[in-house]
Amino acid sequence: MILVLRPDYTPEQFEHLLERIRELGFTPHVSKGQSRTIVGAIGDENEPQAEETFNCLPGVEQVLRIQKPFKLASRDFHRADTVVTVGKTKIGGGFLGMIAGPCAVENVEYLDDIARHVKASGANLLRGGAFKPRTSPYSFQGLGEQGLQMLRAAGDKHDIPVVTEVMDPRQVDMVCRYADMLQIGARNMQNFDLLKEVGQTKKPILLKRGMSATVKDLLMSAEYILSSGNSQVVLCERGVRSFEDSTRNMLDLACVPNIKGQSHLPVIVDPSHATGRPDLIPAMSRAAVAAGADGVHVEVHCCPEKALSDGPQALLPNQYETLMKDMRKLAEVMGKTIA
Amino acid sequence: MILVLRPDYTPEQFEHLLERIRELGFTPHVSKGQSRTIVGAIGDENEPQAEETFNCLPGVEQVLRIQKPFKLASRDFHRADTVVTVGKTKIGGGFLGMIAGPCAVENVEYLDDIARHVKASGANLLRGGAFKPRTSPYSFQGLGEQGLQMLRAAGDKHDIPVVTEVMDPRQVDMVCRYADMLQIGARNMQNFDLLKEVGQTKKPILLKRGMSATVKDLLMSAEYILSSGNSQVVLCERGVRSFEDSTRNMLDLACVPNIKGQSHLPVIVDPSHATGRPDLIPAMSRAAVAAGADGVHVEVHCCPEKALSDGPQALLPNQYETLMKDMRKLAEVMGKTIA
Amino acid sequence: MILVLRPDYTPEQFEHLLERIRELGFTPHVSKGQSRTIVGAIGDENEPQAEETFNCLPGVEQVLRIQKPFKLASRDFHRADTVVTVGKTKIGGGFLGMIAGPCAVENVEYLDDIARHVKASGANLLRGGAFKPRTSPYSFQGLGEQGLQMLRAAGDKHDIPVVTEVMDPRQVDMVCRYADMLQIGARNMQNFDLLKEVGQTKKPILLKRGMSATVKDLLMSAEYILSSGNSQVVLCERGVRSFEDSTRNMLDLACVPNIKGQSHLPVIVDPSHATGRPDLIPAMSRAAVAAGADGVHVEVHCCPEKALSDGPQALLPNQYETLMKDMRKLAEVMGKTIA
Amino acid sequence: MILVLRPDYTPEQFEHLLERIRELGFTPHVSKGQSRTIVGAIGDENEPQAEETFNCLPGVEQVLRIQKPFKLASRDFHRADTVVTVGKTKIGGGFLGMIAGPCAVENVEYLDDIARHVKASGANLLRGGAFKPRTSPYSFQGLGEQGLQMLRAAGDKHDIPVVTEVMDPRQVDMVCRYADMLQIGARNMQNFDLLKEVGQTKKPILLKRGMSATVKDLLMSAEYILSSGNSQVVLCERGVRSFEDSTRNMLDLACVPNIKGQSHLPVIVDPSHATGRPDLIPAMSRAAVAAGADGVHVEVHCCPEKALSDGPQALLPNQYETLMKDMRKLAEVMGKTIA
Repeated sequence: MILVLRPDYTPEQFEHLLERIRELGFTPHVSKGQSRTIVGAIGDENEPQAEETFNCLPGVEQVLRIQKPFKLASRDFHRADTVVTVGKTKIGGGFLGMIAGPCAVENVEYLDDIARHVKASGANLLRGGAFKPRTSPYSFQGLGEQGLQMLRAAGDKHDIPVVTEVMDPRQVDMVCRYADMLQIGARNMQNFDLLKEVGQTKKPILLKRGMSATVKDLLMSAEYILSSGNSQVVLCERGVRSFEDSTRNMLDLACVPNIKGQSHLPVIVDPSHATGRPDLIPAMSRAAVAAGADGVHVEVHCCPEKALSDGPQALLPNQYETLMKDMRKLAEVMGKTIA
Repeated sequence: MILVLRPDYTPEQFEHLLERIRELGFTPHVSKGQSRTIVGAIGDENEPQAEETFNCLPGVEQVLRIQKPFKLASRDFHRADTVVTVGKTKIGGGFLGMIAGPCAVENVEYLDDIARHVKASGANLLRGGAFKPRTSPYSFQGLGEQGLQMLRAAGDKHDIPVVTEVMDPRQVDMVCRYADMLQIGARNMQNFDLLKEVGQTKKPILLKRGMSATVKDLLMSAEYILSSGNSQVVLCERGVRSFEDSTRNMLDLACVPNIKGQSHLPVIVDPSHATGRPDLIPAMSRAAVAAGADGVHVEVHCCPEKALSDGPQALLPNQYETLMKDMRKLAEVMGKTIA
Repeated sequence: MILVLRPDYTPEQFEHLLERIRELGFTPHVSKGQSRTIVGAIGDENEPQAEETFNCLPGVEQVLRIQKPFKLASRDFHRADTVVTVGKTKIGGGFLGMIAGPCAVENVEYLDDIARHVKASGANLLRGGAFKPRTSPYSFQGLGEQGLQMLRAAGDKHDIPVVTEVMDPRQVDMVCRYADMLQIGARNMQNFDLLKEVGQTKKPILLKRGMSATVKDLLMSAEYILSSGNSQVVLCERGVRSFEDSTRNMLDLACVPNIKGQSHLPVIVDPSHATGRPDLIPAMSRAAVAAGADGVHVEVHCCPEKALSDGPQALLPNQYETLMKDMRKLAEVMGKTIA
Repeated sequence: MILVLRPDYTPEQFEHLLERIRELGFTPHVSKGQSRTIVGAIGDENEPQAEETFNCLPGVEQVLRIQKPFKLASRDFHRADTVVTVGKTKIGGGFLGMIAGPCAVENVEYLDDIARHVKASGANLLRGGAFKPRTSPYSFQGLGEQGLQMLRAAGDKHDIPVVTEVMDPRQVDMVCRYADMLQIGARNMQNFDLLKEVGQTKKPILLKRGMSATVKDLLMSAEYILSSGNSQVVLCERGVRSFEDSTRNMLDLACVPNIKGQSHLPVIVDPSHATGRPDLIPAMSRAAVAAGADGVHVEVHCCPEKALSDGPQALLPNQYETLMKDMRKLAEVMGKTIA
């Protein structure tokens, strides 16, 4: 770490900070410039407390980190792309995960219909929510365990693995009994107790980026899961909050190559939540694959106006079929496989 | 609700939407303009599903809400200011809550020292974290129940009620045994299971605004607590994410009069997390009270460089003493009382 | 427009607003609901002053627009894609504009070298700044007319049309003498006097989106140029300000299909300024074309470390050559032509 | 400046960068750490090109600045608060500028009425726009020179200095003939040619912060004016773009103490444009003064529903009178004078 001293630091402050640097296991390296003195603190920057302590020392103006704050999620630690396996589906390392399904599991008929369609179109992972994080306490909150049962049955019937959201650490065991992959929603990206809890399961995790999380924040949340013992993490960009009011969120597609440069974890894109607009989903799905994403997550519903959650942003099954044709063309250009 | 139809809607779509409006318990009211037809759907806009269904109907271009989506948090529902009582401290309706203490409870000595100082300076609520939501899994995560015991002891010794964060629904009972008020942190503002859980306790709740939550989102999260049976909610603005990189977050002080115009709940301000800079805390504390806030939440530490969390943003006890002198002057100008 | 009345409006306020609605040439259409009264004001929403006046009327809570605020830029007004022609290069309607060159024109040698390379790689429009909008008054401000002469000479020598930025209405005539297309930079997107000035020329205009401009703002700025008599406008997304600090700006790629749905104007993407990172440019260029963009704008320099502006974000000529191979593959998938 | 090298830098890259550091007039100072090598480049960081060049050098991962990029605007350069004088009005250094008036000059009667009222209430600077930067080309664009004449006459009649916006470098001379202070609007904060032009006048300048400008950007724009020879600059915070949709912009009040810590220039606050809501203006005006602002800028209109620009956000004269009573109370608490 580098400590930039204030122009008016005193000799006592200087002695004190050298002492504290050594106490924390770092070696100081002083460099006096024309107008400023800087002190390099050579050591392990992930030493808990070091950065904050240095920031508090009298006479210090700013502290600059050099190393990245994450380890297990870093490509420095693990060079090759991680391939996450969910049932027969592979995500990452040249394999595209095509996740589709309704926002919420509502009843057997709809889910069966949607599952059949998306599987036929080429999806390789079925999604559907049984526990729904809704902004309003008066909105449909999901069918709970009954929804999980329906989702499991649909997955088995149509031979497609299933992913569903878990919101509460107390539900992790139950959700694990039914799902092939657990989703952590954007609103829970920094629900650290939940991250630790799913980190102790053997299930692959789909971790969605928080609405105002930086790429670093997202990787630090992945680090919580990885450091709890679960190495099967897929990251998902789903748009962030911005001033633009014509789309639900702003899709930060540049985060795909940005993350893949510094981490080995697969990254997929959810244009449904990112835009909230079915008319933009096909273009942004194509863009995601062209940007190097390891998959696309799309909401599909056979009857959006009867959907109990997020109907307005769902594609119809025939629209999804068309989309998947584009996906295959782009996968070919990118040298990727939809397994 | 108002449905604006597409210029090219068909008679079949028109018949279908009138039918769906009536099915959902609304009365349609048609208005044909020069270039557009609009349909008023007269009824209860909080009817679950209505807004999303209308948005899905073929021929509909946009749906405009008229009513607010929250009820119990609304001033329309409850005209008078809510006064929240925590031990002998009152917050709201002319009473200012002055919350101070360390970011994290670290040991008995520090906490005792800080508690004595802030109480002497005029704080009426002691804060201190036992469960810490840290971005990194490698940072200090809090002392857990041991920290709660220390906090309770400090509160009792110095005769000041205590507030502390709860992060996991499984910890709510334990935290209730020690604390006088429960804090929901910014990262958990939309952890809906946690909101429901604290909504079932009898403890007053300090609900912090999420890093990219709108005022409406914050009030909807309060609605989760209120609708679970707990009416003692204090809202806290603590800064939101923005492009400005010279402060930790951007303090949205205008949200204070904005919220107070539409809700009866008290609103306090946390300039410590909002700015992350001790040099800005006094000015923003004054501004908060002048803007009409019902209190100010400030981190204080007797030895920031030894703090295990957020030391760089803490005030020293003597700085807090000076701040409290300003607080009393501004309370007088605003006709408020620090009880 | 729709006026939603306050719950407590008075009969006098009601009469007054009906009168004002009629005065402004609108027909009122009243609809009394369970809890609210709404008044449709049927007429031309682009009537100057109407929206603001309605917003001021006592008893009115909110005013909702139905029509779009732009006309000439709207696809309702002009169904077919506009194709903008710059020399022999076409942009829009199936033709991709591949714009490349240095950030600033620095000297004849560099520019000649870069021009030869990008032309050979397939670029069809050469860029280079002679007037540079720099954040600091102490940074290189561009070579002015001398730079324009160099750019013109390079374009002529390598048979490629040239585009360059104009920042000041007093320079428009001069820049027109040298350039084939005029660029309005992000910082001047709402420099309305400049927009009117370039709107009176016959040159095609490349209008870059402002750093915090909404899609609607961008289209309104295009409307300034179109309504001044110049219909040859190409829009350019170049990233917006956000909280994410690992890229220079956040590329809002969803704006491409979003704009193309509502406007006939071509839209290109500038991943160089959007990301500020050469390692992300190839992925985001591919994503742009896959999203339906009408071109890509990339900074290229043969010696970035000697560049006088934005060197760190430039591609090397051989990197651009590789990029253009990808561009041709994606153009084929998308059914587009690089003319 | 500090150059952090990539872990895999080569000896050739190392030699090359030392050479380039020296060529640019800096002295290199090498520090080899456990995992990283860093090179301090000791010299003048405002040397044009140095930062960008270092960023381009092969083997360099990141470049960290130590010095601030502005000089004349810095408190390091000029310790004492600058007091800007406009006619008899002083702003800064303990003096509060209370600026009030209509958004646009519309006619003699309205302006006369408003000027009389705000002067009587205690305003010491009259505002009114003759050139209006409107998002839409179809909105009222201002009365131009005729408006300037009306404004001058109102200022003279009511013995109050006047401030008005200038948008085009070609209008600077004309506006100088009528106004006591020139305003640069938010949309032109980085219109560098305009900044240079007003920097060559002798008039005090009111420089508004751009909608997505950082504090550093704002100070760099002030630096353009100062370095052109005009030292009379007042900065104005007027809200920035954000995701919050219940106010027009987000007022970043923390920028007031933030700027005043690093610059000697006066800073005022415009709650009218920041919030767009008259109901929030009094609270935010109080907060501004409590935060240490050197003045408040408020739009006042005697008949908002007939205003030709921004009527919905204007205060009525009697509301302004009440506001000014609060201003005097807070000025006293803060030890400031409204001259």
